[in-house]
Amino acid sequence: MKALLIIAHGSRRKDSNDEVRRLADRIRENSGPAFGLVASAFLEISSPQMDSAIADLAEEGATSIVVFPYFLAAGTHVAHDIPRIVEEEKEAYPNIDFEILPHLGALQGISSLILKHIYKSASGE
Amino acid sequence: MKALLIIAHGSRRKDSNDEVRRLADRIRENSGPAFGLVASAFLEISSPQMDSAIADLAEEGATSIVVFPYFLAAGTHVAHDIPRIVEEEKEAYPNIDFEILPHLGALQGISSLILKHIYKSASGE
Repeated sequence: MKALLIIAHGSRRKDSNDEVRRLADRIRENSGPAFGLVASAFLEISSPQMDSAIADLAEEGATSIVVFPYFLAAGTHVAHDIPRIVEEEKEAYPNIDFEILPHLGALQGISSLILKHIYKSASGE
Repeated sequence: MKALLIIAHGSRRKDSNDEVRRLADRIRENSGPAFGLVASAFLEISSPQMDSAIADLAEEGATSIVVFPYFLAAGTHVAHDIPRIVEEEKEAYPNIDFEILPHLGALQGISSLILKHIYKSASGE
């Protein structure tokens, strides 16, 4: 079974972490047959952390885990922390395939989404 | 003259900060007549910081500054730090109108962008 794991930074504000959890819920509802499991995890402050989310997915029968970094910029977390944790988890779960998708900020669609948003704001005044 | 100021977190990795600067460049090239000035600033680590970016925009003749938080989640930075700095700058520049747009993660388009990205990855395998 294929699993999607959305990784966010994590915040001291519960509202902010709940935004990420709601995003995972929306993706779970709309991901159709592509993913049997959809989960979210945080690098800092909030839980679950990546390792415990991966343990849960393994227990639920994931045979493949696609990691999606919900980050705008390829900072230290995207460039180093997530790949390092995935390498550790590969050793812990040799029977699970891991894949890391490009981070959100790398998607071309982002800049046109922002432009649309900004135009709307500018014309709404 | 109306200015757009894109605020990002800032990273120790130059590549990551350059991604934000390139985004500002793309928006500057494509923002048409909506904004006479487009700049970016960082809350931590990188420069310019918000206050010096706002000083530059004021010097370049901005009469109105639209602040766009380039953040995915409404964490402490979006909920507290950016509004607090904007309040301080309002006092420093009483003749400039300030407006804070909703942060990027609040846009509905984000979740469909992610779904498209994830589907593409899932079907490409």
